[in-house]
Amino acid sequence: MAGFTFTPLTPSAYLDRAAWVFRDRIAIVDGERHFTYAEFGDRAHRLAGALHGLGVQPGDRVAALCVNSHVMLELHNGVPLAGAVLVPLNIRLSRDELVYILRHSGARIMVVTAELAGLAAEIAAATGARLLVAGAGEADEYEGLLRSAAPAVTPCEDERGLLAISYTSGTTGRPKGVMYHHRGAYLQALAAAFHARLTAGSVYLWTLPMFHCDGWCFTWAATAAGATHLCLRAIDPARIWELLRTGGVTHFSAAPTVLTMIANAPEAGAGAPLEPPVQVQTGGAPPSPTLIARMAALGLQVTHLYGLTETYGPLAINDWNPAWDARSPADQAVLQARQGVGNVIADRLRVVDADGNDVPADGETIGELVCRGNDVMLGYYRDEEATAEADLAGWFHTGDLAVMYPDGYAEIRDRAKDIIISGGENIPSVEVERVLDSHPAVIESAVVGRPDDVWGEVAVAFVTLRPGVRATPDELIEHVRARLARFKAPKEIVMVTDLPKTSTGKIQKHVLREQVRAARSR
Amino acid sequence: MAGFTFTPLTPSAYLDRAAWVFRDRIAIVDGERHFTYAEFGDRAHRLAGALHGLGVQPGDRVAALCVNSHVMLELHNGVPLAGAVLVPLNIRLSRDELVYILRHSGARIMVVTAELAGLAAEIAAATGARLLVAGAGEADEYEGLLRSAAPAVTPCEDERGLLAISYTSGTTGRPKGVMYHHRGAYLQALAAAFHARLTAGSVYLWTLPMFHCDGWCFTWAATAAGATHLCLRAIDPARIWELLRTGGVTHFSAAPTVLTMIANAPEAGAGAPLEPPVQVQTGGAPPSPTLIARMAALGLQVTHLYGLTETYGPLAINDWNPAWDARSPADQAVLQARQGVGNVIADRLRVVDADGNDVPADGETIGELVCRGNDVMLGYYRDEEATAEADLAGWFHTGDLAVMYPDGYAEIRDRAKDIIISGGENIPSVEVERVLDSHPAVIESAVVGRPDDVWGEVAVAFVTLRPGVRATPDELIEHVRARLARFKAPKEIVMVTDLPKTSTGKIQKHVLREQVRAARSR
Repeated sequence: MAGFTFTPLTPSAYLDRAAWVFRDRIAIVDGERHFTYAEFGDRAHRLAGALHGLGVQPGDRVAALCVNSHVMLELHNGVPLAGAVLVPLNIRLSRDELVYILRHSGARIMVVTAELAGLAAEIAAATGARLLVAGAGEADEYEGLLRSAAPAVTPCEDERGLLAISYTSGTTGRPKGVMYHHRGAYLQALAAAFHARLTAGSVYLWTLPMFHCDGWCFTWAATAAGATHLCLRAIDPARIWELLRTGGVTHFSAAPTVLTMIANAPEAGAGAPLEPPVQVQTGGAPPSPTLIARMAALGLQVTHLYGLTETYGPLAINDWNPAWDARSPADQAVLQARQGVGNVIADRLRVVDADGNDVPADGETIGELVCRGNDVMLGYYRDEEATAEADLAGWFHTGDLAVMYPDGYAEIRDRAKDIIISGGENIPSVEVERVLDSHPAVIESAVVGRPDDVWGEVAVAFVTLRPGVRATPDELIEHVRARLARFKAPKEIVMVTDLPKTSTGKIQKHVLREQVRAARSR
Repeated sequence: MAGFTFTPLTPSAYLDRAAWVFRDRIAIVDGERHFTYAEFGDRAHRLAGALHGLGVQPGDRVAALCVNSHVMLELHNGVPLAGAVLVPLNIRLSRDELVYILRHSGARIMVVTAELAGLAAEIAAATGARLLVAGAGEADEYEGLLRSAAPAVTPCEDERGLLAISYTSGTTGRPKGVMYHHRGAYLQALAAAFHARLTAGSVYLWTLPMFHCDGWCFTWAATAAGATHLCLRAIDPARIWELLRTGGVTHFSAAPTVLTMIANAPEAGAGAPLEPPVQVQTGGAPPSPTLIARMAALGLQVTHLYGLTETYGPLAINDWNPAWDARSPADQAVLQARQGVGNVIADRLRVVDADGNDVPADGETIGELVCRGNDVMLGYYRDEEATAEADLAGWFHTGDLAVMYPDGYAEIRDRAKDIIISGGENIPSVEVERVLDSHPAVIESAVVGRPDDVWGEVAVAFVTLRPGVRATPDELIEHVRARLARFKAPKEIVMVTDLPKTSTGKIQKHVLREQVRAARSR
């Protein structure tokens, strides 16, 4: 077997293939600009050459502060083609957070789309990073460099080498740099393309931020299929509905909060359900059955994915079982709201007790969701302590509390830190939220624990209501009592106009918890 | 990064997943027998236990002499789960060839389906192999062992380790043992599932022999998708049409000769075109545009795949370009008849000249098709000389002569050894056959060279005609002359009722060549 070679698995291989096979097809639409796959491939290779020209060496980190754009897609291929490591920055973070991440990653170059040039300049002033701004009119340095650079490639030698660093949103403490390897991203992207059934005829609408777990690896998955990337530089439900109705969109992905926004937009009801249905991947937080059913009625077929930054985004999928075809839409939505099973390239998901044994698959016994395999991170960048804690040689503990159903599908009941313990009983906040969300007046809810002298904790619900629909706190509490054990019903309902959210659309329960604690101590 | 583990890529992982996710779905239909995925998974693990019980050690070879059956599917998973190496035997080979392969592989156990017990006993007598016969009524030893064995697994430690040995059909010389590794089969199967768009709702009809390149890895691909394997123990066009019309079949694969048989069966015209169309993968020999167009008219949508035993079956695919949607059916068939491009996990296919440089992509300049990557074999088993010749550290030379079109799709013009050189000009036999096949009277044709004192070689065509349709040799020669350079037209047409074929359905041109040479020397 001497002399035998294997091709390392690296996700930029998908672009190289698409640039050959689908050379004349439209790869990217970004506002007025269109690029074919041949152009996309050429630009990514030129970007690699340009980075080399700026002194980027193999292993160097290159940061991206970009809206969803051709630039970000080019970076997802051009940076690895240069042998460098991509650090996609969450554009909704504060200046200080971004400065911290830039310093921690050690990136000395930051590529920026023009919308963010002002913020980028502040970060550059603090860190000394070299900026490369794209799309800034005539003085477009990015375009200039691409034009003058020769195409280049530093071949990937080690598929287990570092490809990208995704920083966690860090609801508590400093963001951590999650390290992705080439092999994991390659396999995760192929799994995404397979499960979503992307083809060269697909149009993938970029509602999901590309900086978020590399757009859950759809940055590479849509390219693997030769699909068209339709960039959306900002979320605008009216524009999204226009593209869904007339733009040929076949697929998009978004967090449930964005789906809620889309499903409740005035434009949602302004036409017939989409036909054929548009395929929607959702993840980042559990979607409620109510939301899934509402989406289905609009012709938006939701597949629920589950994962963490540490798992290249979704390593789990609520894989549709054809036996569900015969169930009622309401039953289907309940089945689909579960987090499901490992995807086609993932190891089996497990729900384990404190001793690491599988809990009974009874849909009731709560344990912790654990995972391992090719789509679990390499570790945390420059953080040996956190990496050691993550126990990557064994099973990675997600911190999510879940049950396992008899059919092998897991369902998350709560984040370990969000569960409410009242009179010795567990109140899984997600379970209560789902029941609240099923009330016709409710758009969204969040349930947190309030310290209580008698019960230890009691549940408090924050609720946003549909415009023009009325519901009293007592009605909502009664709605929960009629459907769950009485002790799970909130003791208090707080009507709000907005829930606090992270930059990736997750509800910030720690903010709500602080609020109820502060109110109590007053 | 200490303590970090990667899960080795091994195709039995797909069964483990399907047995969990699609546990209650029908995995296998084999005559009257049905198995759910849970049962399939359990049986494969019990088979591993049974093999251990028979003394099978990691790395031992286990031979399979089986028709398409649940047994063969179980072996494709149970043998690797036992840490052993599967040797699928071509059931159409002669006793002597099988004895040679069994001895060469060193397999001491041979699992056999009852249809082949007689042949197997002869082989066992010659080699001393231990037989394990499945399906032989009450004395079903295979079932008995499965019942009594405990489920077992020897985890795959090295994804680059030996998984299976596929022996070439050996038209000349002794069969060679092509070594497959776990990683290659895993990736090839995922690529097959992705390109064919297999889902848990698919029904995959087993017209392709499972022994042939592990059923081109669809043994694992259909399982990865959770599809139903519908076993066909023998090719019977009437039965195939019955299953296509009423059996829910969504996909099948077969060599072009089998497609010709299906398309020309009386049952083909006995109903409306299939709707929705059934997806058909073909490979093993080039299908003619005429055949592809005829299949399309029947509701059988052909995707042309290309590969060799050395490449896990098809490493190339005629990937459908949506731009072709607007072309005429005839144009589409011509575009589809090309071998195409590397599949989603393959490296780029190249067509090179004698110096290893790419030929111009002009659709005219002939070179040799070369390939490399994760779906190229480890080497030839116990044959260092042939392995060294294959130059696996560089580009693997397929022996197929091809052109590259301007759109990046390759088309094979001939096997290197089949091309006819006449008066210093190349006559690619496949090109002439295509034109002959387009004549309404012709079912199939094969063109070979006959030594000639004046021209060096001249072309002789062997042709089978449709029943009840007449055509004279002169008419057929004229048909070619009107469409190709005159020197490419056959000098002689031989009407035959059958063409000699290998056990995998390839036309045996060496037999025809010997025939024309013998006729000339008489």
